[in-house]
Amino acid sequence: MSTVLDPAANPTLALAIDLMARPSVTPEDAGCQTAMAERLQQVGFKIEMLPFHDTLNMWARRGQGKPLFCFAGHTDVVPAGPIEQWHTPPFTPTIIGDTLFGRGAADMKGSLAAMVVATERFIAEYPEPAFDLAYLITSDEEGPFINGTVKVIETLEARQEKIRWCLVGEPSSGKQLGDVIKNGRRGSLTGHLVVKGIQGHVAYPQLADNPVHKAAPALAALAAEVWDHGNQFFPATSFQIANIHAGTGASNVIPGELKVMFNFRYSTEVSAEILQQRVYAILDRFGLNYQLDWTLNGLPFLTASGDLVAATVSAVEQVRGITPRLETTGGTSDGRFIAPTGAQVIELGPINATIHKINECVAIADLTQLTEIYHALLVNLQQRLAHAKR
Amino acid sequence: MSTVLDPAANPTLALAIDLMARPSVTPEDAGCQTAMAERLQQVGFKIEMLPFHDTLNMWARRGQGKPLFCFAGHTDVVPAGPIEQWHTPPFTPTIIGDTLFGRGAADMKGSLAAMVVATERFIAEYPEPAFDLAYLITSDEEGPFINGTVKVIETLEARQEKIRWCLVGEPSSGKQLGDVIKNGRRGSLTGHLVVKGIQGHVAYPQLADNPVHKAAPALAALAAEVWDHGNQFFPATSFQIANIHAGTGASNVIPGELKVMFNFRYSTEVSAEILQQRVYAILDRFGLNYQLDWTLNGLPFLTASGDLVAATVSAVEQVRGITPRLETTGGTSDGRFIAPTGAQVIELGPINATIHKINECVAIADLTQLTEIYHALLVNLQQRLAHAKR
Repeated sequence: MSTVLDPAANPTLALAIDLMARPSVTPEDAGCQTAMAERLQQVGFKIEMLPFHDTLNMWARRGQGKPLFCFAGHTDVVPAGPIEQWHTPPFTPTIIGDTLFGRGAADMKGSLAAMVVATERFIAEYPEPAFDLAYLITSDEEGPFINGTVKVIETLEARQEKIRWCLVGEPSSGKQLGDVIKNGRRGSLTGHLVVKGIQGHVAYPQLADNPVHKAAPALAALAAEVWDHGNQFFPATSFQIANIHAGTGASNVIPGELKVMFNFRYSTEVSAEILQQRVYAILDRFGLNYQLDWTLNGLPFLTASGDLVAATVSAVEQVRGITPRLETTGGTSDGRFIAPTGAQVIELGPINATIHKINECVAIADLTQLTEIYHALLVNLQQRLAHAKR
Repeated sequence: MSTVLDPAANPTLALAIDLMARPSVTPEDAGCQTAMAERLQQVGFKIEMLPFHDTLNMWARRGQGKPLFCFAGHTDVVPAGPIEQWHTPPFTPTIIGDTLFGRGAADMKGSLAAMVVATERFIAEYPEPAFDLAYLITSDEEGPFINGTVKVIETLEARQEKIRWCLVGEPSSGKQLGDVIKNGRRGSLTGHLVVKGIQGHVAYPQLADNPVHKAAPALAALAAEVWDHGNQFFPATSFQIANIHAGTGASNVIPGELKVMFNFRYSTEVSAEILQQRVYAILDRFGLNYQLDWTLNGLPFLTASGDLVAATVSAVEQVRGITPRLETTGGTSDGRFIAPTGAQVIELGPINATIHKINECVAIADLTQLTEIYHALLVNLQQRLAHAKR
């Protein structure tokens, strides 16, 4: 193990430290993409920088014309938070025992380093693989996701450049490395509801129209509604009221309007359009006078099976000796922007216990094994394609 | 009419102007009570000043041992609001045409002036009336009502000094002077409800407990509940949610608690205790985890009939040629503190269209006629009592 803990003998660890030392808080990239580009160029990638407004993006591709495998990820990190609570400076990557501490260790500069080193090894072994390789790297995944992956995908779509398989390096693992692969994500749809009434004095209710009273049974109906039962891959669609506000603060004024913000996390059994129609129907059933605006934060996606799932599950089994669970739970990721192009998309990365927290860290052995998993999945994919050809 | 519009020839107008020129914004009295006391002393009243903390109160009584008639009112006024929106300076009483403008014109320095002038005339005619006379005047009616009428009544009760008939000079009139007499008021009860849940991320609803979802059907049930049907004198009890708040503002956080403030305006068909028990029963039926605190702003009261109602209705008929409606609607008044002692309490004063507003005003003819109405009710009461003795 001692050589593994030495950056001079562990190229993934060395590259992770290099990237983590760059304070690339969203939307800063701080030179991370250039550092990756230099390595990728040396193994035959053509680099295309795609800056949009404040966001730096990199599209790197090796080969042309074959089906395309893409590593996707981000160089930006969330802010460090209160520096004085860190045991080690957040942007001075520090090894303590067998663990690497610093912002971005798990989310997701460790993954980026593992991708690059795995790619270098794979190309050394297979200089002419059966598929092209690419990197889609952004610096705004943790931010407003306006000028990052969304814009790169728009660019690729405009020139009909298609990704067939995409592995996003998000920290998907729970208790141990590789125990969970995300093979999809739920959709996220937010509703901004304003129920209108007529303001008045509580002593004269006949002259007012209380929007809270009008809305209460409709909100109860929305909360009680069974939107679907989920399916083999997705939990049931969930509706949650996140915010509700009405009133001037005074006890003798009937409010004139009620504001409600709610959010759906939804499965592939429904669609945003279906959910919207069903919400309208419920609100209309209760005779509400309302305005309702929507924000579609992300479409649901699912990669139920296929070469990518098979190659990745096998890779985890080979390296870790465990069979990963396929899950679609949790928040959103940039996979939601890639999947709608028709790509198979999965997410696999380090244990997520410390992400976005003080003292973010990753086990150095996990960095090494993640490199082996990424390498194995490339080899598995190569072999599946070669086998299919024969 | 020209002499009536001349303060030198219209003692009610002159005294109203004197009182309105004193900027007695709650809890200030600004010398109003002293000005009234000087006049009342001259016609045989014994003056007792009852200051409590920041509030000046006056108890003035003429006679001892006979049944007691009391004029009640307040010298304080609400703030002027934006001075630049007033046509005339709010504390410089100004006659324009046949109208007197200024803060307190209708609520209720005009009433105070009418009471004093009516009393002076009555005593000149009946130096030994069949009843004692009193004034209960406070300077905190528009404020927190802690150190005003409540404390004076406590003082009177402690020495067993009882009011039999009380006329509160609040502006009860709607479209024309004397069209409405308030012969009671609804009770006012406010509930401060906190429904407790468990905060969490909307992506993991199974780890959270949304208090808005839990509360919505209970709030719907409270809003739909028929609390009573009112009675001959009171409209049905009304429940209104005045404020509701939950949420951090973010769309991805399930709130940890919901705050709701609601208010009852209730009839004599129920009681505060009954309403509280019924609210608890509804909340418990929906299995809520909650905390509920109450503020009892005022008990309901009713003076259905009796000498005072009869004398006052007759007085309005004599002076105005219309029969007033007896109503219990609208907000609260200090009558709620006097009625529980067993007194007959009614409210009669100017048109309330401009009270608490910019350019508050009263028709000068109404001041004159209000003086005549107050005088006539004293005469009517005197004659009823003299007649009863015979």
